[in-house]
Amino acid sequence: MSELQTYALLTYQRCDQLAQFSQDPTCMDRRYLSKEHKSANLQVAQWMQQAGMNVWQDEAGNQWGALQSVIPNAPTLVIGSHLDTVPNGGKYDGILGVLLPLGVVQYLQDTQQTLPFNLQIVGFGDEEGTRFGATLLGSHAVAGSWQEKWANLKDNEGIGLPQAMREFGLDINKVNHGKRDDIDAFIEVHIEQGPVLEALDLPVGIVSAIAGARRFKCMVTGMAGHAGTVPMTMRQDALAASAEMILAIETLAIQHKVVATVGKLTCLSGATNVISGKTEFSIDIRSDNNELKDVAFTDIEQKIQEIANKRKVSLNIIQTHSASAVQCDNDLQAKLSQAIIKNGINTHTLSSGAGHDTMAMANICPVAMLFMRCEKGISHHPAEAICPLDIECTQAVLYNFLQSFTS
Amino acid sequence: MSELQTYALLTYQRCDQLAQFSQDPTCMDRRYLSKEHKSANLQVAQWMQQAGMNVWQDEAGNQWGALQSVIPNAPTLVIGSHLDTVPNGGKYDGILGVLLPLGVVQYLQDTQQTLPFNLQIVGFGDEEGTRFGATLLGSHAVAGSWQEKWANLKDNEGIGLPQAMREFGLDINKVNHGKRDDIDAFIEVHIEQGPVLEALDLPVGIVSAIAGARRFKCMVTGMAGHAGTVPMTMRQDALAASAEMILAIETLAIQHKVVATVGKLTCLSGATNVISGKTEFSIDIRSDNNELKDVAFTDIEQKIQEIANKRKVSLNIIQTHSASAVQCDNDLQAKLSQAIIKNGINTHTLSSGAGHDTMAMANICPVAMLFMRCEKGISHHPAEAICPLDIECTQAVLYNFLQSFTS
Repeated sequence: MSELQTYALLTYQRCDQLAQFSQDPTCMDRRYLSKEHKSANLQVAQWMQQAGMNVWQDEAGNQWGALQSVIPNAPTLVIGSHLDTVPNGGKYDGILGVLLPLGVVQYLQDTQQTLPFNLQIVGFGDEEGTRFGATLLGSHAVAGSWQEKWANLKDNEGIGLPQAMREFGLDINKVNHGKRDDIDAFIEVHIEQGPVLEALDLPVGIVSAIAGARRFKCMVTGMAGHAGTVPMTMRQDALAASAEMILAIETLAIQHKVVATVGKLTCLSGATNVISGKTEFSIDIRSDNNELKDVAFTDIEQKIQEIANKRKVSLNIIQTHSASAVQCDNDLQAKLSQAIIKNGINTHTLSSGAGHDTMAMANICPVAMLFMRCEKGISHHPAEAICPLDIECTQAVLYNFLQSFTS
Repeated sequence: MSELQTYALLTYQRCDQLAQFSQDPTCMDRRYLSKEHKSANLQVAQWMQQAGMNVWQDEAGNQWGALQSVIPNAPTLVIGSHLDTVPNGGKYDGILGVLLPLGVVQYLQDTQQTLPFNLQIVGFGDEEGTRFGATLLGSHAVAGSWQEKWANLKDNEGIGLPQAMREFGLDINKVNHGKRDDIDAFIEVHIEQGPVLEALDLPVGIVSAIAGARRFKCMVTGMAGHAGTVPMTMRQDALAASAEMILAIETLAIQHKVVATVGKLTCLSGATNVISGKTEFSIDIRSDNNELKDVAFTDIEQKIQEIANKRKVSLNIIQTHSASAVQCDNDLQAKLSQAIIKNGINTHTLSSGAGHDTMAMANICPVAMLFMRCEKGISHHPAEAICPLDIECTQAVLYNFLQSFTS
């Protein structure tokens, strides 16, 4: 598939080009309904048109391009991801999932190949949720799962979502017009955001499921005290208790084959010379298996309560988030697998620990995802990096998949 | 000694009265060179005069009262502590050590008893160091260890120490006039600030030594990462590494019979859904045995470095403070012990984990300390509490000690 080399480089360069549209001149930052969102949509629309696609922007600010099949009543495959970024983010998270398939469509156009189905590419306006707090706004609009209460969301500057949409040229009352019920399958290409494919020396992998997640806030209350005068054995040290809990959470996550993270701990009392009296920390537990996730949490809850009892501190746990796992379609996975094998690459299936637009799209059609290797698994960071050879390889896999989609 | 009951109640009430002099109307807060410091000095001076003492304020703002012996060239015993408090502090830390012996002097006066030595009481102006950052300013002036560089200290409002002294009516250039070389012994009575005496059901205990302390800032740098996508075994989690270090520090402190505290930890990166990439935490190690403290730290340093290596995070340790332990005088301890036994109380000797004015005074004379039981070991807190019966008992011990001081 060395013909695709040109398109891989084109895609790589376009990722750089699109990174110009940032609301912060010092880093990558493109949020939903910003001026830069509009500019990025226009640029992507122009590239879609170059590839022979009909383009439109829907009522939620998602950018679409369509390659209509000449066959009547042909099925519709949508491939896409999101065009927004986190503040101080990278150039590939989401964006690659729009520009990589677009490179394949450009190749089809340049080589005058047609498909026996309708192919559409979508660039969702919001996946990260960094402007209004709620995530996946773009794909939820398409999936018909947009929530009315989002009309009350405000950004950091106090601008409400309805006003932001108006200023972008959209009408929040028409956002449901963007709902689609004619999509037969959705595929998302995304950088892995983890180190697994790199460790296996594989350019691309198949996602089996997107992990469900539960998040908790834990408050530990002990007794503040003088660092010099309270003997070690008479302490009710909230930070030491939290430390033991953090290690227990780590150990139990490994035992239960889930991932669990304490990413944030705050000392609410204590100082260099004062024993910690109160701490607060977060727990994030994920698994592609909902039952496994729940069993792991039950064990974690029991264990950290035991630690609290032993150390005579109180523990209060509040769940702040819960989302079920989303399974990828077996048939689509099998076809992606064949496309990978056809390309001479070992297939590797992994679950996605991160959430993706695919989760919303799973509400309306079978879904699947390809993960592409990224350097050191880094994402949401300026150091996010990919290799043009991996783009070429993933484009070849996608091309092979398109050949088999309706077979 | 039931005659002392009146003086114990008087002392208890005076602690309440002195608590009126607070720069914050909502809590106890009396800092060095404040208006309330001046008012407190005046009030204490008045009580000293009532007890037949000559009074003066020295060039560092310390309040003195003297009961001159009729015997020529009699030795001089000073008893005292500090009159300043931490913000949102208690009524007894320091203050009790001035008002408790003053109650005994009032008893001597009322019963027309004289002593074969000069007895002076001092209320130091600054021990806590909460206004200018440096501690023990009052007792360092008396001990001749006032540091010239303190002239550069400023409070939170930008007021320099020289200006604050001027506004108080003092001249920083004359602070060395407060230096004393005529003191033969110094005794300090202080609330324990720990739970040991309460646990032993003892009103009073003898301090063998004031612990030395070393403080460190530890910086742990791992690798931030997505909480969902980085497998547990591939993480370089700075917070999990810190948690393991905190538990190791606790375990090694117990093994080495020192106290070690991680009172503060700050997550410099990380979030609920982001693996912690960088943390910073403090270590405070104390022991009345300098060698034990140093050996404990060496072991701790080695162990937490091993943890860092194992978890592939980097560790940087900076020492921020070091003070040697101060030993109390054996002869004075023996006399205090006899005074306690004479009062029908079991003697218990314990070391002080907290620093005290006695540390500075040890530079110029033999020193000793009595700890008085305080409720739940709480100090530096509005809940600081003592029992009037314990004051009576400690005053009786002090009275007995005065009888034996020159014997």
